[in-house]
Amino acid sequence: MPSTLDFAPQALSNEDRMKRYEKFADEIAELVRTGVLAPGEKVPSVRHASRTYGVSPSTVFQAYYLLEARGLIQARARSGYFVRESAKRPLHEPDIGPRMAETTEVGVSDLVFSVLASLGDPDTVPFGSAFPSPELFPLQRLARSMGQAVREMPPQQVITEMTRGNPDLRRQIALRYMVSGVMLPMDELIITSGAMEALNLCLQVATVPGDLVAIEAPAFYATLQVLERLKLKAVEIPVHPREGIDLDVLEESLERLPIKACWLMSHLQNPIGASMTAEKKERLYRLLQRHDVPLIEDDVYAELYFTKERPRPVKSHDRKGLVMHCSSFSKSLAPGYRIGWVAGGRYAEQIARLKLMTTISPSVPAQAAIADYLQHGGFDRHLRKLRHTLEMQQGQMLASAARHFPAETRVTRPSGGYFLWFEFPQQVDSLQLLQLALAQGISLAPGPIFSATQRFRNCARLNYGSPWDGRSEAAMELLGRMIRSF
Amino acid sequence: MPSTLDFAPQALSNEDRMKRYEKFADEIAELVRTGVLAPGEKVPSVRHASRTYGVSPSTVFQAYYLLEARGLIQARARSGYFVRESAKRPLHEPDIGPRMAETTEVGVSDLVFSVLASLGDPDTVPFGSAFPSPELFPLQRLARSMGQAVREMPPQQVITEMTRGNPDLRRQIALRYMVSGVMLPMDELIITSGAMEALNLCLQVATVPGDLVAIEAPAFYATLQVLERLKLKAVEIPVHPREGIDLDVLEESLERLPIKACWLMSHLQNPIGASMTAEKKERLYRLLQRHDVPLIEDDVYAELYFTKERPRPVKSHDRKGLVMHCSSFSKSLAPGYRIGWVAGGRYAEQIARLKLMTTISPSVPAQAAIADYLQHGGFDRHLRKLRHTLEMQQGQMLASAARHFPAETRVTRPSGGYFLWFEFPQQVDSLQLLQLALAQGISLAPGPIFSATQRFRNCARLNYGSPWDGRSEAAMELLGRMIRSF
Repeated sequence: MPSTLDFAPQALSNEDRMKRYEKFADEIAELVRTGVLAPGEKVPSVRHASRTYGVSPSTVFQAYYLLEARGLIQARARSGYFVRESAKRPLHEPDIGPRMAETTEVGVSDLVFSVLASLGDPDTVPFGSAFPSPELFPLQRLARSMGQAVREMPPQQVITEMTRGNPDLRRQIALRYMVSGVMLPMDELIITSGAMEALNLCLQVATVPGDLVAIEAPAFYATLQVLERLKLKAVEIPVHPREGIDLDVLEESLERLPIKACWLMSHLQNPIGASMTAEKKERLYRLLQRHDVPLIEDDVYAELYFTKERPRPVKSHDRKGLVMHCSSFSKSLAPGYRIGWVAGGRYAEQIARLKLMTTISPSVPAQAAIADYLQHGGFDRHLRKLRHTLEMQQGQMLASAARHFPAETRVTRPSGGYFLWFEFPQQVDSLQLLQLALAQGISLAPGPIFSATQRFRNCARLNYGSPWDGRSEAAMELLGRMIRSF
Repeated sequence: MPSTLDFAPQALSNEDRMKRYEKFADEIAELVRTGVLAPGEKVPSVRHASRTYGVSPSTVFQAYYLLEARGLIQARARSGYFVRESAKRPLHEPDIGPRMAETTEVGVSDLVFSVLASLGDPDTVPFGSAFPSPELFPLQRLARSMGQAVREMPPQQVITEMTRGNPDLRRQIALRYMVSGVMLPMDELIITSGAMEALNLCLQVATVPGDLVAIEAPAFYATLQVLERLKLKAVEIPVHPREGIDLDVLEESLERLPIKACWLMSHLQNPIGASMTAEKKERLYRLLQRHDVPLIEDDVYAELYFTKERPRPVKSHDRKGLVMHCSSFSKSLAPGYRIGWVAGGRYAEQIARLKLMTTISPSVPAQAAIADYLQHGGFDRHLRKLRHTLEMQQGQMLASAARHFPAETRVTRPSGGYFLWFEFPQQVDSLQLLQLALAQGISLAPGPIFSATQRFRNCARLNYGSPWDGRSEAAMELLGRMIRSF
């Protein structure tokens, strides 16, 4: 077998050039955030900045362009760039929920399905969608990889690769883990039909009906549906809008209750966008290890970070095989191909067996296509572009919200992904808002579908994963008026 | 929308030509089976037959070639064709099991997994395999369809087709149902990750843990694994080697026990190869309807019939939505693509929702590829060739078994598929036989993995789905010696 380095993912060739202007933009943004540069204040001219900070004028220009797209600064004719009035914190952060855990039977599935059914119309402005726009993915390049892979596939491959998955694909995934600091034996990796299957399998090997599972509040609605389906009880742990779940509440819950598994997103949590700090992740791991409670780490947005470096998952601390780390290519490369995986820790064998009894295997050609693309398609180049686009679009939606939504509205500012979480004034009912919006051809994901107890009635998740245009802007303006009508 | 007929599956263009010699061969075979033509007897010469029966000499010649391949007749130099000594019934049919139902907790999964793991070596003679040889499938033509489909796929398709599945594919499947006599509203059809997912979903919507499910004995081992996983109890109904489950036993069980679902294969039952008659299927439906017990009809071998016409499934009698009919392309066209479906009857909506909560969707490109192939690839032509090949190979394995296995061995002669079920003399232990065989590079599927109570110890399922060659013949001879050694 060739050494692992032979197939190392392609070097980050454009990285240096991109880094410089992004780094400079971040420094300016930091000055704005911490109030050094106040709203209305002029930012250094291009010439001045270039001289003072030792960067090229084009780097400064690119950085300002980025900051403008992110809604932090704006150009005034013949005067240069100024910090936007709404820049420092255009809308405030939402409040954290009650600082205690709630244990509850889950009964939200019908509501979720009826809301999801209403979101299916492809002609609406897709603020309610769970996916970024498919236009952001290299589907034509993938199609070439698919053509290549299926033409060259030895016939036996269609039946021999059905247990743990395509070996080239598993190897590429393991290499990406390695590059991002997680050493993972190939044996732990099982390819699944998207992350959704992986998460279902993990939960089933870790629990039996009636068990308690610690989850986030708000949580991804599918989490709630799966718990309901498997007759599990949710222990809802509140999520801080920036830093993720409240570990004190989790600790107290683990001491008080016979929790059998913890299922959460440590990075770019859906719907709220929170990402735990490295220290917090380590503390979480130690806490779970002390109680010997397995963690199901849903990391489907792993690649969509706007930060300099890819944050390490909780899995990077795992020496005991306690963490089942689930992810997929559905949000980063190949929506609809339905290829995900789990690094299953000490549960890997059980997960593989359970998969053989339920779906046997994800599509063999789809696996081969992605394996080919990872080796030859330029995944890292695509990801850099994707992150850049999403960051721009986040800025555009934030700026638009600051223009059109009531000033009391609160909003998150996640360091990646493609969702914003809005907390509207108390009297706003987001389920009613959805009905009003749908009538105008706009979708959104209302707060109650993210809670086992149907809280977050005045909240909504909005998707900025589609190119920002006049239609998006008009939709935000309309939404603003509807919100005020409550 | 164009009329359904615009997309009718391609007319059976070669049918007439093929029919004639097959029809003639069947008539001769019938004479052999009923003892009109005894072993050792000369069959009519080509010239004589051509004159007497009004068919062309080439039709007679083709018919005799087919009968030779099926092991019924053999050529003697300069003397013409003779009925083989072993032809009338080369080996006897196996006995039916005890004529009563047994209710049992299922605990066979570990045994199945350890046996399956031992079958993975691609260099063994694959008598134990669950698949026909992948060489029998038009994988290159499918690859063209895949290339075509993914290049032309509108980006939105990758996220819009994730609920019930690709509409062209569902339409093609519904048309095939229509042509074979089952009128099916499109709404009932849900595309799944192979039939395995479909079967899992059906069982889950029809039962809760602890429920009783009527299944066959012997049954496909995955049936047993799924019951075990879902904590369901099996009511094992004995299967007659030719006619399928014993309806009297089923009736008595339905009256006596609170059975919540019935899961069976009415056609080419795995492992025994039995097919229920049309009358029996109707009686089964009426019985289940009277007790309002849903039927999960696993019909994955639907296309692999050797009979003149495609037998209608129990589903064709269904007016109440009581039958969930599951099938796939894995055994007929596209192994490894993992595309199956269920016609879910009144359970369709529940099944669709459950699928959204577990795997969301099977691979969108794989669905599009098969949809393209069904429209343009010549599926019916491929199927005719596949059936013909399998029928030839069945004859070759039957003839070889008659040559090499002890005379007391009993064997089924299914009217399709690619499995034979052997009942060896009482003292043969098929799990030990498997170990001996694996040591010689031969695999087989031992009887106990097909039973919740690990019966059928002296039985085995042998796969004739690979081209018959000297290696196959030598393997049968070796197996014969091993069987005698017990």
